[in-house]
Amino acid sequence: MNDKDFMNMAFKLAKKGKGLVSPNPLVGAVLVKNGKVISKGYHRKYGSHHAEVDAIRKAKEAVSGSTLYCNLEPCCHLKKQTPPCVPLIIQKKIRRVVISNIDPNKEVNGKGVKQLREAGIEVIAGILENEGKELNKFYFKQIKEKFPYITLKIAQSIDGRIGLTKKKQLWLTGKESLKYVHELRSEYDAILVGAGTIKSDNPLLTVREVSGRNPIRIIIDGRLTSPLNSKIFNGKDADRTWIFTSTKSDIRNRKKLSDKGVRIFNLAPSKSQMLDLKEIFSILSKNKINSVLVEGGAEIFSQFVNLDLFDEIIILQAPIILGKGVSSSTTSEFKKLQLLNIQRLGKDIKLVYGIKFSN
Amino acid sequence: MNDKDFMNMAFKLAKKGKGLVSPNPLVGAVLVKNGKVISKGYHRKYGSHHAEVDAIRKAKEAVSGSTLYCNLEPCCHLKKQTPPCVPLIIQKKIRRVVISNIDPNKEVNGKGVKQLREAGIEVIAGILENEGKELNKFYFKQIKEKFPYITLKIAQSIDGRIGLTKKKQLWLTGKESLKYVHELRSEYDAILVGAGTIKSDNPLLTVREVSGRNPIRIIIDGRLTSPLNSKIFNGKDADRTWIFTSTKSDIRNRKKLSDKGVRIFNLAPSKSQMLDLKEIFSILSKNKINSVLVEGGAEIFSQFVNLDLFDEIIILQAPIILGKGVSSSTTSEFKKLQLLNIQRLGKDIKLVYGIKFSN
Repeated sequence: MNDKDFMNMAFKLAKKGKGLVSPNPLVGAVLVKNGKVISKGYHRKYGSHHAEVDAIRKAKEAVSGSTLYCNLEPCCHLKKQTPPCVPLIIQKKIRRVVISNIDPNKEVNGKGVKQLREAGIEVIAGILENEGKELNKFYFKQIKEKFPYITLKIAQSIDGRIGLTKKKQLWLTGKESLKYVHELRSEYDAILVGAGTIKSDNPLLTVREVSGRNPIRIIIDGRLTSPLNSKIFNGKDADRTWIFTSTKSDIRNRKKLSDKGVRIFNLAPSKSQMLDLKEIFSILSKNKINSVLVEGGAEIFSQFVNLDLFDEIIILQAPIILGKGVSSSTTSEFKKLQLLNIQRLGKDIKLVYGIKFSN
Repeated sequence: MNDKDFMNMAFKLAKKGKGLVSPNPLVGAVLVKNGKVISKGYHRKYGSHHAEVDAIRKAKEAVSGSTLYCNLEPCCHLKKQTPPCVPLIIQKKIRRVVISNIDPNKEVNGKGVKQLREAGIEVIAGILENEGKELNKFYFKQIKEKFPYITLKIAQSIDGRIGLTKKKQLWLTGKESLKYVHELRSEYDAILVGAGTIKSDNPLLTVREVSGRNPIRIIIDGRLTSPLNSKIFNGKDADRTWIFTSTKSDIRNRKKLSDKGVRIFNLAPSKSQMLDLKEIFSILSKNKINSVLVEGGAEIFSQFVNLDLFDEIIILQAPIILGKGVSSSTTSEFKKLQLLNIQRLGKDIKLVYGIKFSN
């Protein structure tokens, strides 16, 4: 076992907090003494102990002289719910600290490492740095840009079609893809759809195929045309449904939805009568939504692509040629992307694309 | 090294004959004595020695007592250009023969194995059987169905579009995909396109990005609208260009093309004024074309899909969303396929689909 192996162990622990720690980062910690793991910890949920503290507390032998593996730089600032980790690490006489990423939060951002080194602790940073950044891509985006991480997901046929007609959704992909979508839902702070999806599918947008917490459900519905009897407004979790609508939409319907517990955001419409998507995401960011999975249909998908409003696009491609029907993309211009990942999902394939930065 | 390792060695040797041995199968042979490879051979081109003979001839020590690894059952019939292999194997006192596939050719089809066993030689068949069948998929199709193996290839965007307009081809995919297409060309007996491709692209349809022989170029051109000055009719290889046209097309143009060396096939058109594609492939089969790579545009592609006239579909998908333009498929019905393979090709991906047999 070398530094990378122990760091991978820390990543694995960190992942247990997926969907539960936002807006905090995912952090795992491993304490190793004489080549042996003496304790493991992770950040379980927002407000609970940091991973380092969790690992130190759970150790059944003295941690002095040990090495702490932690994917993110230990914190040193006081502007937060729990006490900082750096003083505890120093106090417990940990000899060496190995981290993957420097915390981009300006309250830390290298200061944690500096304080540890000043206390005579050996610090190694940058182990599996890219993997660490991928793990905490939501956190990094939010800290650096004060804007949520946006993933567009669309399911399509080989010939890039999502269904035969706009009115009726066609379920093209198989059960492995369905499970994967539910996994994604459990990891993102929110799911976003357009009113068209509410009308055509009447979805619940909850996590069912895997265990995990339900995300906030966001509906973009400028004219407030989603039927009031839709499932999404009438479950016990109606308060976790947020609607963005225009100040010009029907005020009585707004009231009725509000009475059901739905949270209404009224926005002034733009000249084109459309809601400003960027404004919506700024509002979401202020409401501690750091990651959004856009599951809308072709129209929503194309709007987001048009505006470059995404960090990642996930295509779930079913092994079928439809030959006619609704295209997944009707963008005004072409968009070059970068392939990040391909993977089989049962009979389907998952393609992950990111923004293309160069040429 | 075990039987599978030596068989993989035979496969590798067999592949050296790709594009050169048709309508014969690809065959490689390895002779192993006391665990050591003492000779290797393969079928180099149509009309030359069989792989077994090649290996036996090249051996620098006595082959008696050795094991022969050969991906296809050694032949025993006389209806062919070269003498059969089984008597030679018996005469040379080879002790053991390991093969991947029984030859489906009814002149052999187990008789080779039977003769070897009757001569006291140990025979093991079925080693890496599926890999062997994949290697000789063109041969197996031809022997079993008397019909060429058909692969449809299309390059498309993420949203399943092949270009912005029908008139102008857009080159979406990168250099790795281009190289791969040229490799395919060197392996198939023929490439097939429609007249539309000749008009929009004026292609050469030769092998340039890799070393290999040029395939026969087949154009489906019912009304004979391909410009007479197209490159494909005016190179030194014009005689390797075959046109399938209707008996109703312009007879003077047919004469002019014939004078350039182009081979003309006149077919009676169907009621819909279209040429019968199945008839075309029967004619190709009779002309020793056992494998055809269909490189036509969206129309040709969709016609073939509609008629179930394919063994394999290769999609080269570029990392771009076009957002509008010509769809790769305009089939009359949807078609379920089976994913056989996915692979990165530089910035693109290659997806291989086959016919879906069950549900």
